[in-house]
Amino acid sequence: MAKLYFYYAAMNAGKSTTLLQADFNYRERGMNTMLWTAALDDRMGEGTIGSRIGLDATAHKFEDDTDLLSAVMAQHDEQPLDCVLVDEAQFLTEEQVIQLSRLADEFHIPVLCYGLRTDFQAKLFPGSATLLALADALVELKAVCECGRKATMNLRVDGEGKAVAAGAQTEIGGNDRYVALCRRHFFARLRAAEEEMARSGEDHASQPMAETAGDVR
Amino acid sequence: MAKLYFYYAAMNAGKSTTLLQADFNYRERGMNTMLWTAALDDRMGEGTIGSRIGLDATAHKFEDDTDLLSAVMAQHDEQPLDCVLVDEAQFLTEEQVIQLSRLADEFHIPVLCYGLRTDFQAKLFPGSATLLALADALVELKAVCECGRKATMNLRVDGEGKAVAAGAQTEIGGNDRYVALCRRHFFARLRAAEEEMARSGEDHASQPMAETAGDVR
Amino acid sequence: MAKLYFYYAAMNAGKSTTLLQADFNYRERGMNTMLWTAALDDRMGEGTIGSRIGLDATAHKFEDDTDLLSAVMAQHDEQPLDCVLVDEAQFLTEEQVIQLSRLADEFHIPVLCYGLRTDFQAKLFPGSATLLALADALVELKAVCECGRKATMNLRVDGEGKAVAAGAQTEIGGNDRYVALCRRHFFARLRAAEEEMARSGEDHASQPMAETAGDVR
Amino acid sequence: MAKLYFYYAAMNAGKSTTLLQADFNYRERGMNTMLWTAALDDRMGEGTIGSRIGLDATAHKFEDDTDLLSAVMAQHDEQPLDCVLVDEAQFLTEEQVIQLSRLADEFHIPVLCYGLRTDFQAKLFPGSATLLALADALVELKAVCECGRKATMNLRVDGEGKAVAAGAQTEIGGNDRYVALCRRHFFARLRAAEEEMARSGEDHASQPMAETAGDVR
Repeated sequence: MAKLYFYYAAMNAGKSTTLLQADFNYRERGMNTMLWTAALDDRMGEGTIGSRIGLDATAHKFEDDTDLLSAVMAQHDEQPLDCVLVDEAQFLTEEQVIQLSRLADEFHIPVLCYGLRTDFQAKLFPGSATLLALADALVELKAVCECGRKATMNLRVDGEGKAVAAGAQTEIGGNDRYVALCRRHFFARLRAAEEEMARSGEDHASQPMAETAGDVR
Repeated sequence: MAKLYFYYAAMNAGKSTTLLQADFNYRERGMNTMLWTAALDDRMGEGTIGSRIGLDATAHKFEDDTDLLSAVMAQHDEQPLDCVLVDEAQFLTEEQVIQLSRLADEFHIPVLCYGLRTDFQAKLFPGSATLLALADALVELKAVCECGRKATMNLRVDGEGKAVAAGAQTEIGGNDRYVALCRRHFFARLRAAEEEMARSGEDHASQPMAETAGDVR
Repeated sequence: MAKLYFYYAAMNAGKSTTLLQADFNYRERGMNTMLWTAALDDRMGEGTIGSRIGLDATAHKFEDDTDLLSAVMAQHDEQPLDCVLVDEAQFLTEEQVIQLSRLADEFHIPVLCYGLRTDFQAKLFPGSATLLALADALVELKAVCECGRKATMNLRVDGEGKAVAAGAQTEIGGNDRYVALCRRHFFARLRAAEEEMARSGEDHASQPMAETAGDVR
Repeated sequence: MAKLYFYYAAMNAGKSTTLLQADFNYRERGMNTMLWTAALDDRMGEGTIGSRIGLDATAHKFEDDTDLLSAVMAQHDEQPLDCVLVDEAQFLTEEQVIQLSRLADEFHIPVLCYGLRTDFQAKLFPGSATLLALADALVELKAVCECGRKATMNLRVDGEGKAVAAGAQTEIGGNDRYVALCRRHFFARLRAAEEEMARSGEDHASQPMAETAGDVR
């Protein structure tokens, strides 16, 4: 009856803090946990889960071809695990999410995944899509928009703070940054960026997400 | 500050009943609502939302090319709407979900969507994927598996009750039926069907969802 | 691992419909259920759970001294129960809620309770208080205020529609009715009624709930 | 449309960490917050919110007679507040919770309260009772029992780790400590302590909570 949880949020909601607190709660009771984070997220150094508020912990790193089921079971055979916690879970593959669901269903190990819901174009990540499809519980962690409403979307902005409307889902290096916004403010700024990009004749492969958002009234 | 809600569930959780009760609550207070359902769902006759428990109501039908924003705003201009309710919301297109989010964000009309989370291969429908990405609130309605646990998955079974592992996402006509199962029982039966299909050399285009589910121990 | 659920709401959210749908879901799968409602709620006839939308079912009645644990276990011994559903759960005693929690904890029978959160003076009922203290899951069912916001409070009104500020928690007979309101509109009308009652010198034992609600600005 | 939230949990779920992260999120966006904690909770020094994981912040202290509405509005008049956060909210009085609800309803300031649900005898605290009655959203933060299930109850234990069945709701000083347990393990140990207390002829005023929990089978 163990469950697979997906704690989803926009940027800067405090996902890593919540993960580290859950991990702390288990270990404080003398239980064993195993922490994972995405290999590509190297903000805090290799194999580290860090939060802006100042907490951090060492974690195993997963790549696209990591067999999470085998890796966790190998550890579990040495010392039984009470909980598996995964940060940056939006980067999991579909197959890895199914592996995690098997940890819960067949081996009775609770799995807590923390990650972004959508990318800078309001599209699901592969990991989020599969977690939203399969998790037993979907729990939102709240970020706050500059207007005070709940922020649920992630706008990509360039070095000058201007919205970016096209590009790869995951931008490594570069000057791009993200800002968490409510859906209304996200689409207003994304749409404006798409329109400017269209005017400037810039080529882009991806379908503009907000194209239906022209004013109807 | 109106919200876009996604009430998601497996088959037979009572989604339509919950929709009709919410509609009843609004109309009982003298408020105006607008009901929508998918054109392809003609179980209950054209343009009808019906529930197994015996309730039903007339609804507008949406097809893939229905402009929901224009259609709702035309009605809203005649008589202000207090709520829009959408059944079979898994069949919405991405564009239509964005239109519904604009009803909430820009025109302050609450939108309540009810639909399946995943198809018979554990894949998101287009409408569910976009609602899971964009909705302000994700609320699960509970179905029950034959084992007593929460049913979250929909197994497609043929006329003899055998699991079907491949085919179109939406099967119209035919003898296929669906059964709501917990994730564990769903994958066990889907995997068995995939294995039998593989043994029989049957051709199938779609990637078997449960292929990673071989026993590791 | 069975759970005790408390589905709470204001008046007219559709609690009984939700209960009857959950019961339908279990019975549709060939499972056995047992339904309970408060003896004092005889709106729909003795031992009946009825909903405004037109559904109803026969139910056992509990009074303050009903031993729910013994009564359910007697039935369970004859034919194993898969779920116990309780309407008007705000009228349960503290002891009865503990009995229901034991059905879940010790006998593994899920228990679904549906009831009001607060009375016409914004006070918890005995049953709601204990369920809010002990239930595994607190799930809100939504009613709608006349202003379009979520209604969470129950205002008692007399035959002329005027708010009633004092009296017994449960009024049987008489011309009093209830209206579901959001918290803001509830306290505005309750406070006005309290002030009028104070001006008219009427005696009342209960502490006015909204007395701190004088304007501070 | 600001809301009053009650984040409730057993001991050691990480309530203070969650509060401090929410506060961090607001301040990181350049918004203003005001923090409160109970005067009697002096674990971390006067006027400090501290978490076991190592975070802390300075907070205003409330006592039973603190007028929270006036105190917050005085601050709000100097510099508009975007959020009020209250730790140890189980110690709020009924009147103070109503004051906080007015901050949300009339002055549009979101209020986030964090506190215990029940005391060592499974009874609601005054603050929890009123928050469970009036809050717009009830959100559970999870602690873990030694058995791996969700811990929802707080057992008081003496210096030798034995359960304490009677006493004041809040014990200051002394050697008593608390342990978070699931409901099943909580009642098993509380009941055993009550029985031992009864055998030893010890006098106690409070009604034993678990007295109905004798074995019926």
